[in-house]
Amino acid sequence: MLERYERAVQYYETDQMGIVHHSNYARWFEEARCFILDKAGLPYAKMEENGVLVPVLSVSATFRRYFKYGDIFSLHVAITKFNGVKMEVSYKVYNKASGELCTEGCSSHCFVKSDMKPFNMKKEMPEMYDTIYGLLNSSEI
Amino acid sequence: MLERYERAVQYYETDQMGIVHHSNYARWFEEARCFILDKAGLPYAKMEENGVLVPVLSVSATFRRYFKYGDIFSLHVAITKFNGVKMEVSYKVYNKASGELCTEGCSSHCFVKSDMKPFNMKKEMPEMYDTIYGLLNSSEI
Amino acid sequence: MLERYERAVQYYETDQMGIVHHSNYARWFEEARCFILDKAGLPYAKMEENGVLVPVLSVSATFRRYFKYGDIFSLHVAITKFNGVKMEVSYKVYNKASGELCTEGCSSHCFVKSDMKPFNMKKEMPEMYDTIYGLLNSSEI
Amino acid sequence: MLERYERAVQYYETDQMGIVHHSNYARWFEEARCFILDKAGLPYAKMEENGVLVPVLSVSATFRRYFKYGDIFSLHVAITKFNGVKMEVSYKVYNKASGELCTEGCSSHCFVKSDMKPFNMKKEMPEMYDTIYGLLNSSEI
Repeated sequence: MLERYERAVQYYETDQMGIVHHSNYARWFEEARCFILDKAGLPYAKMEENGVLVPVLSVSATFRRYFKYGDIFSLHVAITKFNGVKMEVSYKVYNKASGELCTEGCSSHCFVKSDMKPFNMKKEMPEMYDTIYGLLNSSEI
Repeated sequence: MLERYERAVQYYETDQMGIVHHSNYARWFEEARCFILDKAGLPYAKMEENGVLVPVLSVSATFRRYFKYGDIFSLHVAITKFNGVKMEVSYKVYNKASGELCTEGCSSHCFVKSDMKPFNMKKEMPEMYDTIYGLLNSSEI
Repeated sequence: MLERYERAVQYYETDQMGIVHHSNYARWFEEARCFILDKAGLPYAKMEENGVLVPVLSVSATFRRYFKYGDIFSLHVAITKFNGVKMEVSYKVYNKASGELCTEGCSSHCFVKSDMKPFNMKKEMPEMYDTIYGLLNSSEI
Repeated sequence: MLERYERAVQYYETDQMGIVHHSNYARWFEEARCFILDKAGLPYAKMEENGVLVPVLSVSATFRRYFKYGDIFSLHVAITKFNGVKMEVSYKVYNKASGELCTEGCSSHCFVKSDMKPFNMKKEMPEMYDTIYGLLNSSEI
């Protein structure tokens, strides 16, 4: 399932080159990731309350065009891999006004308990497993 | 006791006005605050491990001149009030090269246990109390 | 005129105390400030394109209750002083769910040209002056 | 040439998982990158003054172990590709106390003029070209 997350660039996200500082993209990816989990009935705040943490294993981003203050970004996000232990999420960030693809990215995550140890989600938390599995999109985003 | 904390401005701290974004000053104040506690033998990481949190009650800053990338700041920091329950910290941020006073600020804090409840530090943790009291500087920074 | 700016707390805005790091409030204030200027037909990106910068002269915040991840904040913002050269903006941040007032703040700004020099807005840019004057709210927010 | 850049983790870099938020690694990489250019006599602030910008084309990071507040990181940084138009920089971030490799990363950059257009550095700015070429390290960092 492909979802879109949109918002305006914030002034504090710019740097003196006059563009969005690249460290913000990992934050935009996180916003979009939490947005789709929330929409699927799995708000991340609740997951943590239930003792499940989702640390980041890797993150990458490629920049083709730069966002500026005044732009609105439209972030297309999809879960592209999931096996109950690990999850991969893919991102394409478009300039909403021009429709141009500006940034592509990917992040991978594991699911652990509060002690930072992995667990068998399919067995221990089948409902959560089914919800995330339902978001899985094997096709290109 | 007056202490100085110095470092270079980071590129990611700038905004598109070409100056340090004002939200960073609260971070610089925190760096300097932790620096003097650390130097006094009270690393903040250890305080938290011992179950003491120091949330911020208020923070303020006035900007006379703006820092740019390439500048080094020299932050003069002093604990100006302390009674075992609350603490006030004052900051003056100078441009190291020019010696000009650029920013002044102040923050106030309380000491609480992990449950966010205040406690009697003088009685329960007299050593910590004495160390912070020793840093108290009633004179102008 | 009193305006409300609302959004969810982001995960990256939290710190290890489990609350929103206090440096983010200056960012929330900025978001809300730009929001009301934008709504009044003065998007800040356009102001900069027209050669007008609005640097921050001072910012302060007092924290009564702390925001957590999962909260939605409702930020009441009002321009409380304006004379064409300087502007003061006041902020009250409520927890949307509980209705509790959590944070109060204030920021002051000047209007300058790209060379960082002040100018007579009433004379040189009367339309901008009138728009901001129209936002002025002398009453308590 | 392999260089090491070290500093303590800041409190504001943590998130509510109790670890450094992953968006900070792109910032640490930038700090280290500017550090080695500065040390080689090419302070990035001067490069921009001379009309040369170095935007980021891509950035990636893999996390094996997480940094916590109280840790000191030791960041090994090397320029691994450079042809006068593009540059690749590689990073390995160690926990200074334990010596453990915690994070690996890579970023690629292009050199452009203020109008965001590439130029022939070898021809137009041979001194800058030679300095960066001198930093090139084709071996593993």
